Amino acid sequence: MPARILLQLDNDSHPSSFDSVVAIDAGVDQLLRYGNVQTDSIIPLVHGAMFTRGGDDLRSTAIFIGGSNVKQAEALMKAAKNAFFGPVRVSMMLDANGCNTTAAAAVVAASRHLNLSKARAIVLGGTGPVGQRVAQLLAHDGASVTLTSRSLDRGEQACEEIRSKLQQDSRIVAVSSETLQSDSAVLQDQEIIIACGAAGVELLSEQSLVALPNLCVAIDLNAVPPAGLGGIGVTDKAKPIGAAVGYGAIGVGGLKMKTHRAAIASLYESNDRLLDAVEIYEIAKTIG
Amino acid sequence: MPARILLQLDNDSHPSSFDSVVAIDAGVDQLLRYGNVQTDSIIPLVHGAMFTRGGDDLRSTAIFIGGSNVKQAEALMKAAKNAFFGPVRVSMMLDANGCNTTAAAAVVAASRHLNLSKARAIVLGGTGPVGQRVAQLLAHDGASVTLTSRSLDRGEQACEEIRSKLQQDSRIVAVSSETLQSDSAVLQDQEIIIACGAAGVELLSEQSLVALPNLCVAIDLNAVPPAGLGGIGVTDKAKPIGAAVGYGAIGVGGLKMKTHRAAIASLYESNDRLLDAVEIYEIAKTIG
Amino acid sequence: MPARILLQLDNDSHPSSFDSVVAIDAGVDQLLRYGNVQTDSIIPLVHGAMFTRGGDDLRSTAIFIGGSNVKQAEALMKAAKNAFFGPVRVSMMLDANGCNTTAAAAVVAASRHLNLSKARAIVLGGTGPVGQRVAQLLAHDGASVTLTSRSLDRGEQACEEIRSKLQQDSRIVAVSSETLQSDSAVLQDQEIIIACGAAGVELLSEQSLVALPNLCVAIDLNAVPPAGLGGIGVTDKAKPIGAAVGYGAIGVGGLKMKTHRAAIASLYESNDRLLDAVEIYEIAKTIG
Repeated sequence: MPARILLQLDNDSHPSSFDSVVAIDAGVDQLLRYGNVQTDSIIPLVHGAMFTRGGDDLRSTAIFIGGSNVKQAEALMKAAKNAFFGPVRVSMMLDANGCNTTAAAAVVAASRHLNLSKARAIVLGGTGPVGQRVAQLLAHDGASVTLTSRSLDRGEQACEEIRSKLQQDSRIVAVSSETLQSDSAVLQDQEIIIACGAAGVELLSEQSLVALPNLCVAIDLNAVPPAGLGGIGVTDKAKPIGAAVGYGAIGVGGLKMKTHRAAIASLYESNDRLLDAVEIYEIAKTIG
Repeated sequence: MPARILLQLDNDSHPSSFDSVVAIDAGVDQLLRYGNVQTDSIIPLVHGAMFTRGGDDLRSTAIFIGGSNVKQAEALMKAAKNAFFGPVRVSMMLDANGCNTTAAAAVVAASRHLNLSKARAIVLGGTGPVGQRVAQLLAHDGASVTLTSRSLDRGEQACEEIRSKLQQDSRIVAVSSETLQSDSAVLQDQEIIIACGAAGVELLSEQSLVALPNLCVAIDLNAVPPAGLGGIGVTDKAKPIGAAVGYGAIGVGGLKMKTHRAAIASLYESNDRLLDAVEIYEIAKTIG
Repeated sequence: MPARILLQLDNDSHPSSFDSVVAIDAGVDQLLRYGNVQTDSIIPLVHGAMFTRGGDDLRSTAIFIGGSNVKQAEALMKAAKNAFFGPVRVSMMLDANGCNTTAAAAVVAASRHLNLSKARAIVLGGTGPVGQRVAQLLAHDGASVTLTSRSLDRGEQACEEIRSKLQQDSRIVAVSSETLQSDSAVLQDQEIIIACGAAGVELLSEQSLVALPNLCVAIDLNAVPPAGLGGIGVTDKAKPIGAAVGYGAIGVGGLKMKTHRAAIASLYESNDRLLDAVEIYEIAKTIG
């Protein structure tokens, strides 16, 4: 088998060292790393991956799309897909800012404690790249999802985007975090709570959290104190909090890393993998 | 033997992924890739290649000069050569924009069908980097070469440049493509026709092509439809067209790729190879 | 053991090919090379090195800080150290512009010919990065050091910086090179003379050099003629000059290269090495 090559295409000027190390540990032999990748400069890079190896060897070349700007990474993924010619293509994975592996690991962690297909879940600060993906994956597995945002408009727009990726009977609604009181029926109802807000803002106090009567799992994906969910430590991993269990960002980090490595390795199983949120989530399930 | 290192020096901001994959498949262990290489920034890069390994180990380091701008790549090659100190040097190859491997593969393909040393050949759109090299290699092997250009001045200038690289008795002349009619004696005479013009322009119709009485081989190096030579498909490989055979860009692509890999591998046989058009052509001959 | 990864962080736009080749020859499996690294862009690169491998595997990732600007490299080293979290850190080496390996090799070369702890040494042009390190290492081993500079102010400032890195009883003073006559008592006294001045300036004539009554070793670290010390050739290696022996830049180059490779290799022995002048000098001693 020829050397496993990964084109690491990053929208930051310095391609992520994190993504490079994980790729190496996932078995990549040769990394071709690019920073400052734009939609108008990606085509020749993709063509170079497509037209250099033939037949079965083509699956030994793959593309990883990263960088801190998730929207731009999505545009890169789309532009790269458009550069493919029918079966002349290479496998590709998007994990800009770790959005897909983080979301997948969080939802798999939640699924250890209850059946998602019947669960009620709320995603706090759900309009960012991780929040949207967490909401998508929960709804994908049948949960009834509420997504919160400071702006109801932005929340509803996020729901609309998420619905376009889901089956018609998926259940996802937005509420304004401004109007969400700790004693509101919406919050009281929830079994899963996942906080994806910006760093440095407590979205729910420990007192409010432990008082939620139906709460089963609470996950805070914020890695920098103060916690988004009061009472959850960054290294917590299925740690009891009230009658529920809690996870912090590092608490789901082990699963996230294993998912990232497994996803990279799976790129080389064929030349036509496209790994975005749902595909990476399915990989995380086999690990979690 | 120490690791085989290739400095890939590219004048584009993103070093070519195509050239990187080919280098890896040619046995390079470690690629040191540089974009935006200019003549004034190349010296320390070359010195780093020259002064880090001694004796026989020096031949395990080599330099590849690429990028979409062939003229700039030639200036880089010259600047790099000037940085060498006598025997303290490393092997070096130029294949900016694939110009040398493409030209070499095309001329070797032609040579399968007739003896170049007695042949009459015309290079349509011959003033570009590939066209000039095709004309040079044909004349190098003794063919009588006509080079066409929309501007006779540019065509004669190209001939002058080519002659400076050839032996004195080489036969190469320029004609204006404007004045070249399909029934002209010049065209009627040709046994080989190779089209190297810009993409998207038909230089000769299929009707005119098949009517040429002496034509033996027709090669169109344009990869994007419409074909530069009417009736030639991009994947044609020694496919009959009239009484001749035709090749398209992909039809010579397999030989081009093998030549590229073999040329890279040969860099490591000594520390003083300089691979430009003729040297790469000699390698292509051993493959074709 | 996982692949040995080296983050090569360079303040020039093109990361040094010299440093890359040496790293590969020192056993690095995968180089992650970055140019244009600034103090404000280094943190995510360091975090990516820290947070991707756990436990004993962490020592298979390390950082090299290079580039032609030594002051900037020192600022990068400091910023990288500040990014570490307690034991979550990786080994790191600074050798911007070869300053540490060059200085270490020169001082070890001198130590072959006399006992440094009792020696009197003068460093000509001692305010630059290499000169300061040479002076520091000589004083570190107990020599009585005089550092010259065209400006006494700059010389005294350099001494102050060096003293801050040394034990209190170290002996190091500055003199102005303007006032330093070849028959001055200061110069007559010296057993070791090491020239670290800018290229193209002769700091001491051969005549003056061979007349020094106590001189034991003369080392000229200038690689470009004319020599900084008259009569010393760039490849001289313990070559007699008067009653002393002389070394040129290439004459200490072999030891410098071995030191560089050994220092890189030692980074992987634990995850908490910090290799700057003294640590690299200690490594050079085990080789020299």
